[in-house]
Amino acid sequence: MVLNVASITIQLQYTFADIEIICIVLPSHTAAAALKKAPMLVKTFSQSLSAQLAARFAERIATGLLAPGARLPSVRHCAQQQGVSPSTVVAAYDQLLAQGLVEAQRNRGFYIRNRALALMDKGQVAMKNDNSKGLDKSLAPGFAAHHVPVNATALIRGMFQGGSDKPQPGLGAFPPDWLDTPFLPAAIRRVTSGPQFKAFSTQYGEPAGDLGLRQALSARLQSLAIDATAQHILTTVGATHALDIVSRTLLRAGDCVMVEEPGWAIEFARLDALGMRILPVPRGPDGPDLAVMARYCELHQPKLFVSVSVLHNPTGYCLSPGSAHRLLQLANTHNFVIVEDDTYSHLAPEHATRLSALDGLQRTIYVSGFSKILAPGWRIGFLAAPPHLYEQLLDTKLLATLTTPALLEKALAWCMEQGQLRRHAQQVRTRLDQARSRSVKLALAAGCSFAAPPAGLFGWVDTGVDTDALAQRMLDMGYLLAPGSLFHANRKPGTLMRINFCTTQEAAFWQVFETIRATL
Amino acid sequence: MVLNVASITIQLQYTFADIEIICIVLPSHTAAAALKKAPMLVKTFSQSLSAQLAARFAERIATGLLAPGARLPSVRHCAQQQGVSPSTVVAAYDQLLAQGLVEAQRNRGFYIRNRALALMDKGQVAMKNDNSKGLDKSLAPGFAAHHVPVNATALIRGMFQGGSDKPQPGLGAFPPDWLDTPFLPAAIRRVTSGPQFKAFSTQYGEPAGDLGLRQALSARLQSLAIDATAQHILTTVGATHALDIVSRTLLRAGDCVMVEEPGWAIEFARLDALGMRILPVPRGPDGPDLAVMARYCELHQPKLFVSVSVLHNPTGYCLSPGSAHRLLQLANTHNFVIVEDDTYSHLAPEHATRLSALDGLQRTIYVSGFSKILAPGWRIGFLAAPPHLYEQLLDTKLLATLTTPALLEKALAWCMEQGQLRRHAQQVRTRLDQARSRSVKLALAAGCSFAAPPAGLFGWVDTGVDTDALAQRMLDMGYLLAPGSLFHANRKPGTLMRINFCTTQEAAFWQVFETIRATL
Repeated sequence: MVLNVASITIQLQYTFADIEIICIVLPSHTAAAALKKAPMLVKTFSQSLSAQLAARFAERIATGLLAPGARLPSVRHCAQQQGVSPSTVVAAYDQLLAQGLVEAQRNRGFYIRNRALALMDKGQVAMKNDNSKGLDKSLAPGFAAHHVPVNATALIRGMFQGGSDKPQPGLGAFPPDWLDTPFLPAAIRRVTSGPQFKAFSTQYGEPAGDLGLRQALSARLQSLAIDATAQHILTTVGATHALDIVSRTLLRAGDCVMVEEPGWAIEFARLDALGMRILPVPRGPDGPDLAVMARYCELHQPKLFVSVSVLHNPTGYCLSPGSAHRLLQLANTHNFVIVEDDTYSHLAPEHATRLSALDGLQRTIYVSGFSKILAPGWRIGFLAAPPHLYEQLLDTKLLATLTTPALLEKALAWCMEQGQLRRHAQQVRTRLDQARSRSVKLALAAGCSFAAPPAGLFGWVDTGVDTDALAQRMLDMGYLLAPGSLFHANRKPGTLMRINFCTTQEAAFWQVFETIRATL
Repeated sequence: MVLNVASITIQLQYTFADIEIICIVLPSHTAAAALKKAPMLVKTFSQSLSAQLAARFAERIATGLLAPGARLPSVRHCAQQQGVSPSTVVAAYDQLLAQGLVEAQRNRGFYIRNRALALMDKGQVAMKNDNSKGLDKSLAPGFAAHHVPVNATALIRGMFQGGSDKPQPGLGAFPPDWLDTPFLPAAIRRVTSGPQFKAFSTQYGEPAGDLGLRQALSARLQSLAIDATAQHILTTVGATHALDIVSRTLLRAGDCVMVEEPGWAIEFARLDALGMRILPVPRGPDGPDLAVMARYCELHQPKLFVSVSVLHNPTGYCLSPGSAHRLLQLANTHNFVIVEDDTYSHLAPEHATRLSALDGLQRTIYVSGFSKILAPGWRIGFLAAPPHLYEQLLDTKLLATLTTPALLEKALAWCMEQGQLRRHAQQVRTRLDQARSRSVKLALAAGCSFAAPPAGLFGWVDTGVDTDALAQRMLDMGYLLAPGSLFHANRKPGTLMRINFCTTQEAAFWQVFETIRATL
């Protein structure tokens, strides 16, 4: 049960977070949409129709499918949809009211309550998060800082309460069987059986991370033309932790930070939770929109730019050398730091243009990890930083977690030293090329087009219909999608979605996709 | 080499951090003191006397032994101390000036430069940490918020550049050989050899942490009369990470937080780095000073109180039931949350009074970990929280690190389920009782007294002399101490120091101690 539950890993958050957004953006009809395609209610011995209907709404509220502020459908509308009498709906809404899940607003209908506020009413909450506190939200016209709902991640929990055996197109990582290699357990056995095991367990280890791993990482970075020694490298709890350390070290609440858009939802959410002002920078095929960045710099003096330069998520774009050069010039002129998130490093050619290589780690911090290629569960990431920033970053790591687990780091170092990781990555790339080829054919046959040339793990697909609505409907069919709104700081809806090439190789998915799309 | 280096683990930071404080508090004489006991300079073929002297100062600056703002000794004074000519000292200071490490202030002498500022002069730094930004530092008279130097932790690195084979009295944890058990590698082998290994490596795992471990933790908490199910528990990267998650979730920059004093230096530093205002609460034998807390509540409405209720660090005090009850009443009246740091849980009797047990996890968050009893290198800690706070805390974990390593968590769960941890903890307690008995006798024989009844891992010892000066001098003899100033938010110097009973059982240390103390 635990394993089964864990198999729908963290990436499924996209769809859940998305659905919250739908509810916020379109409160008037989405509560209805959320239930539209659910199975017909049938009276049973143990549960009345109204109780079943109330339970269905309660579940959607608990999983975030219906977000605070969303309106329940009108009684008449809901009765029609569900094929029940209006009095059954009234009884169901009464139950939700009694449970404190919704509130009635005179002449306006029923709305999902904010759970924290509901608890505060009961005197159970001492304080609540208020990310806006102390921040001046006013920015120059045309450059509005976006407020991302911090509880996007709260919805991650929802995905562990149920699931599907189908391949999930919205997944953000490789399916587990792609990463199943015999050398991982061998590596663990190796570091466990020797006398060094004692040192890896009974001591805190080096603050910067296992020296052997940092040396292996340095060798890897040299192969990418990034000149970083072990003394420039800091290991972390996955690339996420590395990005978090950078944000906490270089920014303070209220600071402006530029982030590529479309971009990764967790990055928007983390920066928002830290109280930062997010300045979204359009990402094009060659790189970020430098004119927009220059304007931001003049108006807001942002301190940091977060960029996925190679195999950008979700587009798959790779930075061009010319764009990289001009971006670094801009950074020098306006004195901001760039954090280069190279999470998809192992899926890209070594000669791909990386800012950290051009810049020589002067004002660039390089971040990567191993969750996308080897062992998400080991939680190993790292950063390589300029000497003048390194010590502050190490301070932040120490204050947040002290050290990181040396045993796993040493096992990973062995995989790298032996060339196991390199060979494995090559095999994964070959397999991914085949999967991408199949997936692209099926997507095109299903009437989709690609908004960006297919590359890497993800396709950025134009479906021709609103993907928020599409995701909502596909969820009822057991498919989790990653609609385009999830990759925008302001959750802008649209016709794009991101697909994982590994999990969209089967015709069955595309058939359901075509059927549902036809109804929108 | 790596292992040797790692063996002087994280705890040695106390002494290094302390030395920084000495330099800040007493700039006029400490730079001299820092070099006083160093070996005599001898001219060599490869390096002039002035170069040696400059290198010696540079090293002390790099390790934080001489902090920014500290004054170098006068030329005359330094020449006398070092047995060199004044011109040699002038030449050495010139070299330090040229290196940008010190600056000359007209008619006042030479001062250690702030490294970040020095780099900014050169245009190499885009920004610097400014924790005071946006904060109103004014507080009511008599309740000054303390500013802790954030770079206390930067000094941790220094300890990995050298070391000593002697037992270190300032250590904050058990020496590695105390934690060397055969069941740790057995546990790892067990989770590595089974089919579950694949799941623990190729998937992210559950956001809240491995379910098996959370169930084992729940059983452990039940034995402490704390009623927390697996659904209330969140695993973390050590107890430090748990405390960090609590701070980030409940507080925003500028918020007031009450912390026991004396208390743990890293806690002061972390809260300061997050921009919080620290309100120190005197800790007595029965518990925190409730009158001071009540006054803080009236004046500053603090949101959080951080408390080590059982085997308090550094005093070893345990909270009395009556004090616990009144503290919880105060928390209810003034609506603040308490985070109960039970890091030393396994060294204390199960029946010790814990706030979380009395409170039923209503407004108390319980934090503990396994670094003090089992495997510091595994970095496993956890928190148990009230339901209404749990989801926000989980959000913070996900944004900061996504998940934590399931493989190590499952191995720990096995150690707990098999009763291995319980038996091991019992053995450690027995051995510690014997060590404490020996150490106390030696301390008393050396003329020290105990400021608190000896209990747990640490002794809170009155030496009768200034322990900042003592620590400085003992460092030159190869002993790292933990002077009392390190446990105060404002680094107040005094005659107290914390000793680790495991590492103060040998007469050799106390002989050196007596010799050095006699010179002060």
